[in-house]
Amino acid sequence: MKSRAAVAFAPGEPLQIVELDVEAPKAGEVLIKITHTGVCHTDAFTLSGADPEGVFPAVLGHEGAGIVVQVGEGVTSVQPGDHVIPLYTAECRECLFCKSGKTNLCVAVRATQGKGLMPDGTTRFSYKGQPIYHYMGCSTFSEYTVVAEVSLAKINPEANPEHVCLLGCGVTTGIGAVHNTAKVQEGDTVAVFGLGGIGLAVVQGARQAKAGRIIVVDTNSEKFKLAREFGATDCLNPKDHADPIQQVIVEMTGWGVDHSFECIGNTKVMRSALESAHRGWGQSVIIGVAGAGQEISTRPFQLVTGRTWKGTAFGGVKGRTQLPKMVEDAMKGDIQLEPFVTHTMGLQDINHAFDLMDEGKSIRTVIHFNEPAAQN
Amino acid sequence: MKSRAAVAFAPGEPLQIVELDVEAPKAGEVLIKITHTGVCHTDAFTLSGADPEGVFPAVLGHEGAGIVVQVGEGVTSVQPGDHVIPLYTAECRECLFCKSGKTNLCVAVRATQGKGLMPDGTTRFSYKGQPIYHYMGCSTFSEYTVVAEVSLAKINPEANPEHVCLLGCGVTTGIGAVHNTAKVQEGDTVAVFGLGGIGLAVVQGARQAKAGRIIVVDTNSEKFKLAREFGATDCLNPKDHADPIQQVIVEMTGWGVDHSFECIGNTKVMRSALESAHRGWGQSVIIGVAGAGQEISTRPFQLVTGRTWKGTAFGGVKGRTQLPKMVEDAMKGDIQLEPFVTHTMGLQDINHAFDLMDEGKSIRTVIHFNEPAAQN
Repeated sequence: MKSRAAVAFAPGEPLQIVELDVEAPKAGEVLIKITHTGVCHTDAFTLSGADPEGVFPAVLGHEGAGIVVQVGEGVTSVQPGDHVIPLYTAECRECLFCKSGKTNLCVAVRATQGKGLMPDGTTRFSYKGQPIYHYMGCSTFSEYTVVAEVSLAKINPEANPEHVCLLGCGVTTGIGAVHNTAKVQEGDTVAVFGLGGIGLAVVQGARQAKAGRIIVVDTNSEKFKLAREFGATDCLNPKDHADPIQQVIVEMTGWGVDHSFECIGNTKVMRSALESAHRGWGQSVIIGVAGAGQEISTRPFQLVTGRTWKGTAFGGVKGRTQLPKMVEDAMKGDIQLEPFVTHTMGLQDINHAFDLMDEGKSIRTVIHFNEPAAQN
Repeated sequence: MKSRAAVAFAPGEPLQIVELDVEAPKAGEVLIKITHTGVCHTDAFTLSGADPEGVFPAVLGHEGAGIVVQVGEGVTSVQPGDHVIPLYTAECRECLFCKSGKTNLCVAVRATQGKGLMPDGTTRFSYKGQPIYHYMGCSTFSEYTVVAEVSLAKINPEANPEHVCLLGCGVTTGIGAVHNTAKVQEGDTVAVFGLGGIGLAVVQGARQAKAGRIIVVDTNSEKFKLAREFGATDCLNPKDHADPIQQVIVEMTGWGVDHSFECIGNTKVMRSALESAHRGWGQSVIIGVAGAGQEISTRPFQLVTGRTWKGTAFGGVKGRTQLPKMVEDAMKGDIQLEPFVTHTMGLQDINHAFDLMDEGKSIRTVIHFNEPAAQN
């Protein structure tokens, strides 16, 4: 079938809106009509060419919501008409990792997904006869996309897709990191580095967990207003301080924070976040994705004196099992999604969404596949 | 009073056996007659001049056993005649850290201890009228030493001091790291990097925890025999492999080990240990102490895909609370100490003990203060 899509033909170039050919789903696959998709920094990271795993030409996008159109052979967990969120972290419930009870990092489709292919090693997208690659197992920048059954969370059809599409990546990652990875407890102190969508979601998660003090750090003070609305108690702009920001945080808290979160992908900030953690038990969680070849470093003394360095992917959330509940939480208002959506527009304006993000002017732009013209 | 002691007058020079003057214990302090002391790599590290916190002249030694001779004002938890192990990690039971229930890193005497002083900011040792510094709050290379009351574990007087002195540092650190820091569970896989006293103690702790597979790594294959006796199931000499040892371990285990331990103090090995850990949930514990200014590094991807980097000091053990029980365990044979003691000698031969350690010929030399001549 034909599908309107924004295609990344080459790194560093704007996306092109074209009519793709999309093949029918094969065994274990599902064809979805995407109604809404967020535009995330990870899409921009891959488009820039800095992502060592990036393959081109590809349909980017991994933060979407849609409706099942057709299922392939053997698919039993969803059927046409079901409302779904595609998952870049699959959940097969059968692999070593799914069965471990210790991680959400399912390996069922990992090897092919990393290469931009479906599990059988081929692609369902083509343009003028040339294959176009998938992306993160989702490719939500196409009105129709094919994903593996294990990469789909079935959600309440009453949910607002303009909002809950954000649970496909950033918001879930941030909130999940607080509850699943750091396990923040009531009264704990928290520091959040970077106030993009993920950082703001961490703030929201920390308030859910009843953290006692939520310190946010960003070089753009304009972001502090929304952070405060979400629950931040202290806002720090490193530009306002002569000392390294970790030193500022250690001094203002006595010994550092119980939990810190790096939500940018900057390896220097990852070190600052670790070194902001409390002597004896503080932990630091890396959420941001660093550029190819970049490394984190610190003195081992930081760990020997009781700090723990961790990371998280998709906030440790098992998508098929936990995401439906998070959608319900959003419908009840226990997770606030609306404030993240600073811009909406149609697919034809998607390059503008990347510009807004690059310029720090948006938190999230949500693309409406049915919407003809740009807002804002 | 006079005390025979081995004094480190300057970095890089041999210790000198002299008669020191030792002052009576002040309030909250205890005078101890040391009967036995181990010689640990940390003593050699400080003596070399590489320890940024090293102060000279000082009485080194921190792995001892002794008997209380005299107590200062206000001391209630020990009395003359009690058998004790000095603790370089104090346990005051009153500070933020002791009360947290999350760490053993008491801060009661930390600031002064790091400067080689007693809590009141002065030293009890002098030689020809010149002050001599304390070391790690213990200074067990002196027949008589003064330590803070909060730095003393009172132990069963029936215990063999030649063996249980090793619980003052290396063996407790290794066993404690397994149980308190990593919390190894039955069936878990473990990798141990470095087979000195601490590494061998980790092996022993892993067997206590009923680990399923215990992989040991050392560049000296002669150490594998004892490691196997302690429970090692696989012995790897990096010199026998063309690939990086972490790659060897990941391949032989499928996805890496559940727990890895760095027991050397080499920052490159710390990276190998981390990267040997299982995707999704593996954790790596740094036990070794690195040289001044050295840093650890890795790609953040290692953490984002589920590995955790930790450290431990004194194995997370609260000395006054937990060490008496470990002494009992050693008396019952549940902790084996005798195999660690490869050499014994009198204080006058202590420089030979450092040579044996440097040459990799000893696991632990125990100095007997009553023994006139060298063995071995």
